[in-house]
Order: sequence, then structure tokens, then C-alpha cells
Amino acid sequence: MKTSSFLVCFLVLFLFSCKETHQPKAMDLANATLVDLSHSYSKETVYWVTAKEFELDTVFAGQTDKGYYYAANNFATAEHGGTHIDAPIHFAEGKQTVDEIPLKKLVGSAIKVDVSKNAKNNPDYLVSIDDLKAWEEKHGIQIPEGSIVLLETGFAEYYPNRVKYMGTDQRGDDAVKLLHFPGLDPEAATWLVENRNIHSIGIDTPSIDYGQSQYFKTHVILMTNNIPAFENLTNLNQLPEKDFTIIALPMKIKGGSGAPLRIIGVVN
Amino acid sequence: MKTSSFLVCFLVLFLFSCKETHQPKAMDLANATLVDLSHSYSKETVYWVTAKEFELDTVFAGQTDKGYYYAANNFATAEHGGTHIDAPIHFAEGKQTVDEIPLKKLVGSAIKVDVSKNAKNNPDYLVSIDDLKAWEEKHGIQIPEGSIVLLETGFAEYYPNRVKYMGTDQRGDDAVKLLHFPGLDPEAATWLVENRNIHSIGIDTPSIDYGQSQYFKTHVILMTNNIPAFENLTNLNQLPEKDFTIIALPMKIKGGSGAPLRIIGVVN
Repeated sequence: MKTSSFLVCFLVLFLFSCKETHQPKAMDLANATLVDLSHSYSKETVYWVTAKEFELDTVFAGQTDKGYYYAANNFATAEHGGTHIDAPIHFAEGKQTVDEIPLKKLVGSAIKVDVSKNAKNNPDYLVSIDDLKAWEEKHGIQIPEGSIVLLETGFAEYYPNRVKYMGTDQRGDDAVKLLHFPGLDPEAATWLVENRNIHSIGIDTPSIDYGQSQYFKTHVILMTNNIPAFENLTNLNQLPEKDFTIIALPMKIKGGSGAPLRIIGVVN
Repeated sequence: MKTSSFLVCFLVLFLFSCKETHQPKAMDLANATLVDLSHSYSKETVYWVTAKEFELDTVFAGQTDKGYYYAANNFATAEHGGTHIDAPIHFAEGKQTVDEIPLKKLVGSAIKVDVSKNAKNNPDYLVSIDDLKAWEEKHGIQIPEGSIVLLETGFAEYYPNRVKYMGTDQRGDDAVKLLHFPGLDPEAATWLVENRNIHSIGIDTPSIDYGQSQYFKTHVILMTNNIPAFENLTNLNQLPEKDFTIIALPMKIKGGSGAPLRIIGVVN
């Protein structure tokens, strides 16, 4: 073999190696930044105004008579409170329960649409088709096939101040009409379902429908299409607008309409 | 530059590229197999014989008077039941609560030590130092720094048959002495703590201490060293013995001694 053949050989091998190294979906966990997007559960945790709030009961905490320390608690909660997932069955009869959601819809490539400049001071803000298209224009690509889409309104900053975060600290049926916080416009939900094949969606407010919603159309549109929603997210400002991974693992409640969710972003 | 210099240049670049490409921690999520290692929560879920079992209460399920379908539940449970995590504070005063465990201890490279051949038919089996050393000998490496270590006893196959899985279907204080299932020998826990820097540990039985344990020494040793334990795992037989990733995300209970855990294996 001639020297020039050696050179070509090495060049081909080198380029091939580079191609593999730059695969967009490969995640270097050892050197990645893990961003916790979950609020913790406590007496402070924000729930829907009609929902059962979080209760923690100490079963034992202290030295046992056998000489070792021991601590354990029981807890009770609504499925939908704090950082949680809405399974499709929450608003769509016969669709997936929380234990039935395929892991591939909960773990994967994500994008973030930052509407905080417009939404932060408008508690009735609806994330629009234009907001989604603006992301696409800015980044020069369509929302990629199979994306997990996160909507950043900036409202996590108000959490857990209920008046600022959701418009009221009153509870019960009469408080529902006092709710004010941003959500996804039902028209934008329809546009996503019809034009972009997304895996799941998340928002940093109490609900994917805005506070003043009466018919929860965004929920119905998404969930009829088996798209789960993550609600009450936090720390979205620590994520880039693309090229990161979401890992969203809900408690596996058999037949559950939703569940507490631990969700993290992986940024390389 | 001479031809030989070119060659050396390419060789160096090629080897450098190879090094990057073969980094063990890079995870190709798009093409990976995701293995769910979690049992679901229901009336069947296995709890410690003295612990509060899982209760799900339907709040609503059906058509609302506004014309849309809606389903929601409340639930109540002990922190320690089904597939769950023991936070260090469970058996070590002042150590990390479940919300304080760093994400880096819950997400990362893992190994599996398969002792099912010996443990499957011996419900008092203790995973030994020799079992851990046998893994190292077989694979020609030490248990890597920062590993998540999973112990496969094969007992998940019996779940949720309580008599087969844990030795008894009786409940209450008197049932504790009837518990029989494999666990990690306290001597092996000590060996791990003193000789291998692991991030966390998991097992496919109800507890990291075996059923006949009286002083829960393995818990105390691990948790005094801030090593959390994953219990009641399943599907470990779908994982290789090395070169895979574990993602273990517990419900973020503020001050919790443990929590329901959704845990998956990522196999490339």
C-alpha cells in the first residue's frame, strides 16, 4: 500500500469517528449538568384550589429500643398538585393512565419556548401559535419530531405565593373563577397536534390551560391525542432553548389520572 | 511537512477521536432501550408488614356538566412500600432526607451483580463480599468509582405473592419474625463503603437488609455514609452486568425519609 493510500485511509477513519462523536442525541451524563425542574412536596406545595393538599405524618423518628436510629412517614395527596403529570385519561376517556404512558414519551430531546417577557406581567397570557413559530424562526428549524416541549412563562418565580402564582389564596369551588395564570392557547394546542408530532409538553404554571379557562380545551385537545402534560415546573430559566434532554419520571400509579412527577433537565 | 509527519498527525487525531467516541458515559437516548425497573402502585403493592398500604380514592371520573370528561384521584401511602428509595436519614440521624440526595447519586453509570443462582432458592441468602469480588474477577475491573450497584436475587419473579416474595402474607408486629428474603450482608456493605466509592445501591427484594435481620446493620452502614438504597426493584434480568445507566427519580418529599421511586435502566 502506498503512503497516499494510508493517508486516505486515516482521513476516512478520522471523519467517521468525528461523525459518531457529534451525534446530537448522545448524552454525556458524567459531565452533564442536571437541573431539577421539580418543586418539593410540603405544606407549602401549591394545589388546585379544590384539591386535597399534601399531608405528611411522622410514623417514627428517633432511637429504637434496639439501639439504631429510625425515621419513617406516611403521606396523603391529590394526584394533581405540586410538580405533577397529567396523564391523558385526566381529560380524555379511555386514553392512557399514568402507568401506561410509554417511557419514550417521558425521556428524550426537548426544546423550551420562552414567553416570559410577555407572560410575566400578564396573568391571563395565552401561549400562541405565533410564539411557537417565533421559536422555529429564531432557531431556523421546525420543532423536531418527538420533542418534549417546555413553556417558560416565568411564573415559577412567584411559587409558592398563591396570590401572585395563581391569582388567589382562597380555596374551594368559589375560588376557581379567581384563578389567573398563563397557559397554552387551545388554538396553539391544535396547531401542535396537527402540524408537529410532539411527545409531551410542560409549563411552569399550575395548569396547561390558563387560569381563566372554563372548558379546559387545551387539556382535551392534547390528551385526546395521548400527549401528557407536566405542570408546576420550576428552574426552566436554567435550560437552553434547544439541545437538551428531559427525563420526567412520574410515580407509577396503576390506573392513575396523574401523579407526582420528578423531572430533570440534562444539559451537556 | 514530510509524509511521515502527516501520518503521525492523522494517527494522533484518529486516536483522540476514538477516545471521545468510546467514552463509557455517553448515552444515545434515541436508540437506547429503556427498561422500567419499577412495580406499579395498587392494592397489590407489597409493603413492609407493619406499614400503611397504598390507598387510591376516586375523586371524580366521568362526564362533567360542562361537557368534557374528567378523572382525578387522591392517594395515601407509607413512604416505604412498593418500588421506593430509602433516604440516608431512614437509618442515620442527621443524614440526607430524600429531597436532599444529590441528583448525581441517582443518575449515572451502573453495574449489576447477579446472585440469582444462589439466592433464588435460599430466602435467607446474604449477598457476600465474595459475590462482589466475583463480579470484579469476571469483568476484570474493580466496581467503578461512583457506580450505582444493583443486586439481582431473582425474587422479583415472586412479586406480589407475599408468601413467596417475603416469607409471609401476615401483617403486624408479629409478622416481622416471619420475614424471609435475601439482602446484602453487613460485612459486604462495610467492604463497599471502605473499599469502593459507590453512589447508591438497589435490590429486587423488600429491603437491602435480609428478611431475618434484627438490627438492620446494612442500612445503618450504608446510610451513615449517605448511600441511598432502592428496594423492591423489578426487571433486573433485562439489564446487562455493566455498561448501562440508571435513572432513579424519587418523589421530592421535603424532609422525607424515603419516597416512591420511578427507576429505569438505559441500555445502549
